[in-house]
Amino acid sequence: MSLVTVEEIRRAADRVRGVALRTPVVSYTGPRVDGLLLKAESLQPTGAFKVRGASNALACLDAEQRARGVVTHSSGNHAQALAYAAHRLGVRAVTVMPHDVSPVKREATERWGAEIVLVEPAEREAATDELVEKHGYVPVPPYDHRDVIAGQGTVGLEIVEDVPDVDLVLVPVSGGGLVSGIAAAVKALRPSARVVGVEPELAADAQASVWAGELVGWSVAETNRTVADGLRVPRLGDLTWAHIKAYVEDVVTVSEDDIRQAVRDLATGARLVAEPSGATAPAAAFAKLAGSGAPGRTVAVVSGGVVDPGAYAGMLA
Amino acid sequence: MSLVTVEEIRRAADRVRGVALRTPVVSYTGPRVDGLLLKAESLQPTGAFKVRGASNALACLDAEQRARGVVTHSSGNHAQALAYAAHRLGVRAVTVMPHDVSPVKREATERWGAEIVLVEPAEREAATDELVEKHGYVPVPPYDHRDVIAGQGTVGLEIVEDVPDVDLVLVPVSGGGLVSGIAAAVKALRPSARVVGVEPELAADAQASVWAGELVGWSVAETNRTVADGLRVPRLGDLTWAHIKAYVEDVVTVSEDDIRQAVRDLATGARLVAEPSGATAPAAAFAKLAGSGAPGRTVAVVSGGVVDPGAYAGMLA
Repeated sequence: MSLVTVEEIRRAADRVRGVALRTPVVSYTGPRVDGLLLKAESLQPTGAFKVRGASNALACLDAEQRARGVVTHSSGNHAQALAYAAHRLGVRAVTVMPHDVSPVKREATERWGAEIVLVEPAEREAATDELVEKHGYVPVPPYDHRDVIAGQGTVGLEIVEDVPDVDLVLVPVSGGGLVSGIAAAVKALRPSARVVGVEPELAADAQASVWAGELVGWSVAETNRTVADGLRVPRLGDLTWAHIKAYVEDVVTVSEDDIRQAVRDLATGARLVAEPSGATAPAAAFAKLAGSGAPGRTVAVVSGGVVDPGAYAGMLA
Repeated sequence: MSLVTVEEIRRAADRVRGVALRTPVVSYTGPRVDGLLLKAESLQPTGAFKVRGASNALACLDAEQRARGVVTHSSGNHAQALAYAAHRLGVRAVTVMPHDVSPVKREATERWGAEIVLVEPAEREAATDELVEKHGYVPVPPYDHRDVIAGQGTVGLEIVEDVPDVDLVLVPVSGGGLVSGIAAAVKALRPSARVVGVEPELAADAQASVWAGELVGWSVAETNRTVADGLRVPRLGDLTWAHIKAYVEDVVTVSEDDIRQAVRDLATGARLVAEPSGATAPAAAFAKLAGSGAPGRTVAVVSGGVVDPGAYAGMLA
């Protein structure tokens, strides 16, 4: 299986410019870990790194495919990112959602003009296939796709540009698109740097895969236990697993308490609103590097900040 | 009185690089105002724009002055910024604080190695003068100083670089250093853009000055009523007033409810933790531009995000 190259990621960087934000690396100045750096993907329009992969995938379509429009059956940050990127690039977007989707997520996708098709939760994939068949929409999957991985990889390019002496990059792992792209970029440009994945203990299927040396899936019932709702994908993709095997040094886990504490620390120590999934990689720095002396130049990716104000306030208080 | 020039601000930009963050312009994507842009100064180390002016003022000192060290009697964001910049530039910093200063503010300043001198609240200025007299420390005032204004003006340079077609820049006003620097830069580089100051209704001494055509002070008892504790300075400085007269088109006010609502909107619509003072300029965009059709390209400065987690959670809930 051929892996995404740094040249593909460089081309992606040209394509996503103007749609995705070139996010800053912010210094964490709170207690517990000195000198931690944070790649603030939570500042993207729509609130998560996903806009990079979605806009690159759309920009890679030919004119005929763009004219047909795109479809996805995600209801989270990927759906909103695809709707936003499609809106910016003038492409029609259709999102298949379960009829019990939260109004917040539905509105956040509809805001960008995406058409919503509501179906039974179990029928999402079948309904998507039917739309592809009937209308010719192009499916844009959330992570297991090389244009999506190349788009997410632009985060890695920017980290090496801004922190050329980086030693360790901590990245949250769900379906694996973000860590695959970042690792492909970082290992090409700064081979001595380590890229480490971070998962909640309650959704540690990628760690299980690395330990087993083969792709291991968990049950949805298991991964659904974590508060980090963006990291509940129970199994890596084939393409993302190939990247992780090749480039990712290790996958570590954090507890639910570590994640909640990191949400608080990011608010006070870096003025970043992070959702629990977005706080998971910094949580590993706070939990594992605290008091360990000089951990070298560490960058943790804050992958997203889409929060319900009430739930977020509850985590801060 | 000679005003700060754009050349001075350009030189300041060279000096503050590496100490202050080059902050992003973030797209607000929540309800109420389409297309609002936010200059996220809350992401600076220490959490506010103040690090720009402090680091420029320090970098402008000669070797002999640096060897003596610097002193301030602020206890807020300027004190922390001066301590941070002094730490980064290897200069000794002394901060005079009232003995009833909050432990949070004291620790945030001590973290960077600044020496704290505790005095009676009414004796802060006298104690500072005494330290200058006795030890030769160089005083670095928080706003009414041309090197400080030039440092804050780098925010304006970056706004015009990132948004060359900007039409309106909204800036919070307290002592006036930030709005003076930004206006000096923006009016030099993009004369058609308007720079508008924003104050809480409860601390509207700059608006009163603009309306009267002369410098008007309010009482501390009056300005202390606003929740925006960074905007309670009751009177502009002579130098900042001269800049405002020359360059600032208007000063508008927002209510306490507008400010609190903006704190919430910035968390959900831009994933930015803003303190009430930092949310005051965006509050004007939300309150005054909502539903008004195309307001042109508007950038509001989010000047700071230093919050107590409990109080912040209370504003979000």
